[in-house]
Amino acid sequence: MVQPTAFLAPIIHSLSISELEILPCALLVVNGEGKITSLLKDVNPNEARHILDRLNFPGIKINVLGPGRFLIPGFIDTHNHAPQWAQRGLGQGMHILDWLDTITFPNEARFQDPACARRIYASCVDGFLRQGVTTASYYGSVHGEATRILADICLEKGQRALVGKCNMSRNAPDFYRDASVEQSLRVTEECIAHIRSADPGGQLVRPVLTPRFAISCDDELLRGLGRIAAREPDLPIQTHFNEAEQEMQATRGLFPQFDSEADLYEHFGLLGPRSILAHCCYVTEYEMERLRALGCGVAHCPVSNMTVGGGFMAAPVREFLRRGIKVGLGTDSGGGFSSSILDAMRQAMIASHAREVMSKGQDKGLRIAEVFCLATLGGAQVCSLEDGVGNFVVGKDFDALVVGTQGGDQGIMTMVEEHDSLETVFEKFVMTGDDRNILEVYVQGRLVKPSCDEGAVKH
Amino acid sequence: MVQPTAFLAPIIHSLSISELEILPCALLVVNGEGKITSLLKDVNPNEARHILDRLNFPGIKINVLGPGRFLIPGFIDTHNHAPQWAQRGLGQGMHILDWLDTITFPNEARFQDPACARRIYASCVDGFLRQGVTTASYYGSVHGEATRILADICLEKGQRALVGKCNMSRNAPDFYRDASVEQSLRVTEECIAHIRSADPGGQLVRPVLTPRFAISCDDELLRGLGRIAAREPDLPIQTHFNEAEQEMQATRGLFPQFDSEADLYEHFGLLGPRSILAHCCYVTEYEMERLRALGCGVAHCPVSNMTVGGGFMAAPVREFLRRGIKVGLGTDSGGGFSSSILDAMRQAMIASHAREVMSKGQDKGLRIAEVFCLATLGGAQVCSLEDGVGNFVVGKDFDALVVGTQGGDQGIMTMVEEHDSLETVFEKFVMTGDDRNILEVYVQGRLVKPSCDEGAVKH
Repeated sequence: MVQPTAFLAPIIHSLSISELEILPCALLVVNGEGKITSLLKDVNPNEARHILDRLNFPGIKINVLGPGRFLIPGFIDTHNHAPQWAQRGLGQGMHILDWLDTITFPNEARFQDPACARRIYASCVDGFLRQGVTTASYYGSVHGEATRILADICLEKGQRALVGKCNMSRNAPDFYRDASVEQSLRVTEECIAHIRSADPGGQLVRPVLTPRFAISCDDELLRGLGRIAAREPDLPIQTHFNEAEQEMQATRGLFPQFDSEADLYEHFGLLGPRSILAHCCYVTEYEMERLRALGCGVAHCPVSNMTVGGGFMAAPVREFLRRGIKVGLGTDSGGGFSSSILDAMRQAMIASHAREVMSKGQDKGLRIAEVFCLATLGGAQVCSLEDGVGNFVVGKDFDALVVGTQGGDQGIMTMVEEHDSLETVFEKFVMTGDDRNILEVYVQGRLVKPSCDEGAVKH
Repeated sequence: MVQPTAFLAPIIHSLSISELEILPCALLVVNGEGKITSLLKDVNPNEARHILDRLNFPGIKINVLGPGRFLIPGFIDTHNHAPQWAQRGLGQGMHILDWLDTITFPNEARFQDPACARRIYASCVDGFLRQGVTTASYYGSVHGEATRILADICLEKGQRALVGKCNMSRNAPDFYRDASVEQSLRVTEECIAHIRSADPGGQLVRPVLTPRFAISCDDELLRGLGRIAAREPDLPIQTHFNEAEQEMQATRGLFPQFDSEADLYEHFGLLGPRSILAHCCYVTEYEMERLRALGCGVAHCPVSNMTVGGGFMAAPVREFLRRGIKVGLGTDSGGGFSSSILDAMRQAMIASHAREVMSKGQDKGLRIAEVFCLATLGGAQVCSLEDGVGNFVVGKDFDALVVGTQGGDQGIMTMVEEHDSLETVFEKFVMTGDDRNILEVYVQGRLVKPSCDEGAVKH
């Protein structure tokens, strides 16, 4: 339970990919369960109290946002490797499989040690909350205990999350892979059970099936995960999909019976509306059509696609949107050097401009309003959480950021001027802001932004 | 005069594009004139005082950097529009001429008002110093008084700068262009004289000839600027060069007698070793060879090239380097949404990866050590300042940043671990750091980083 609160504030949120709603003076009411019960437009500040009385919230605290401040929905990071938090920025320019072998597997292997998991996951979750990520879909390491620790930390710190134990039974070093298919599946079930017992209603944290990618999973493991998926129709599934040429070639070598990764994952029962497919950089016409028909979601990770992983090409987002395929943004931290969804939004625009050139102008670049939708409502759709979060529709949970654009004491770089419209201030925030502009972070109505003095960055 | 100081610290700087020198424990001495008089490698902390005595610096203060800290040369921003500080982030995805007409010219026209210039330029210079830009090559607005104010503010705040009054006699709105060629040249001369009188030795701030681009300058104006350049062989020259297709096409229409922008600017005496050519996104074999033969410098601005301006393609930097053409980095703030050279470094890597794909692997992507060189030594070469700054060679001025990678109280996002090597810590800073990692900024031995509580961001 939280304290019911009303916000009298400028509000900006996406109603759809083509509809950004900008409300200069709205009244938003959050009840004791952290749910949005009202969103009223064009409210005169003088009548707010009267309206709240009529809404049966007498005496409710009214949070009036000051100059240059506004409310937006929390950011949703649809693709995030929690154990890579401390390796962000390393291995630039490497191709995917080399980067895994040289940098990533040795790093993730350390999460065998619960103390390491506790230290780095606490910093990771604090770090993402500070940057306004109210929901993250996390890949854990291969380890059961570390993955349970990650889920516990998300719950404790109040971050909404999907948390998955990473499945990998082959093509990984001896020191870092599941001992057997049986063990991989058993630990997966243990993690699912733990998370459900820690958060029985799945209010905040939920399990997610996480086969790393087909290269690291043999047929038997994929079949076993497919059986769990069939038994649990609400369990989300995440994996890497058509990320890079090196990866796609290796996959074809291991699974010559399939013409595409779409057919491969579909065969094992892992492709459907609850599938979160990271990257999708190279997608054939056939696969595009399968993703659409099956209702899969794409976790677009432009930062890592353009730097680590190889291929150096990001997903054809405009084409996905044209076909009605769900798209959200992922930091892919730490393959992506940045853990900021704001950076992901900017890089999504940049990558879309490169796609515009490649398509000779046919696939127009993404606009600010569009990448903002991907970062919020689109991400909610990809994580199958759109009934609960993603914008400020009445009935959803209040996952929100109070954005500030003025104030030297916080080192804010955004420069707003008196004559700037709310839309201009918003654009300046999206393009020039950072975590210092994100003054407050709410998940389910609970204030969760850690201050700089505690947690996150004390290492 | 400054207090002579010795630094006992890890030091990282570029000796050339292919040589990054990493010194885990070096002793660097700065004399009372802010010049580096010694740089000794592998100094045992216990013997530092003794060495300083022998160097004739008895009693000198020794600045011992703490854990996770190191010294690097100050960043050099080779292309920066000071009057666009408050418009950063606006006009995303627009083509260059539309962006100028809609967003930029109306904004820059405001600098007719000296109060506006004082307010925004103070914030701008503080903002760049905070981010470690010790040298900037600034385009001012078209106005003489505002440009003189910019130079004065750089001097007062201690930023090394080239400052130029923007020349534009045509193809700009009535409310924002030079009244005549005669006036354009006269105001240019006045600004040159003012800057030379304010900083007689050009120790910190120097004038730079700044024809915006050929589209905004008729033959007579270019000829007049060429005359000034001929009279003043040490005066640097900056302009936009082959930035975008829309711009190149318009230039060809206005100057049909020239086959290329290289021929055009050379004809008017504006192309040579002191020319700072912003962008150079599309350069023919012929032009590439002219730039090399004439010794021109390229201000590579990957952030703006990929977002605003059109073309959405950045310069072929690998090819420039292969030919020995000087290359530095520019934020191109505000066409570039980011005012951070760290962002420019990352985006330079990303743009180079796109070029690698386009060249089918021939033009390899840029590595961290290379973009770091562009941001420091390369920038110094482009600005013809390499004898004075760019690295820590003895005899140069001490323009330097103290980088910190630990410390939650500053909100530092970089996560460094105990076992990280100095090189790893450096890579984490370059890829995941921001202005909060830049703890101290020195220009000519003077500490110039403004604190968050004053200046920069109080608007």
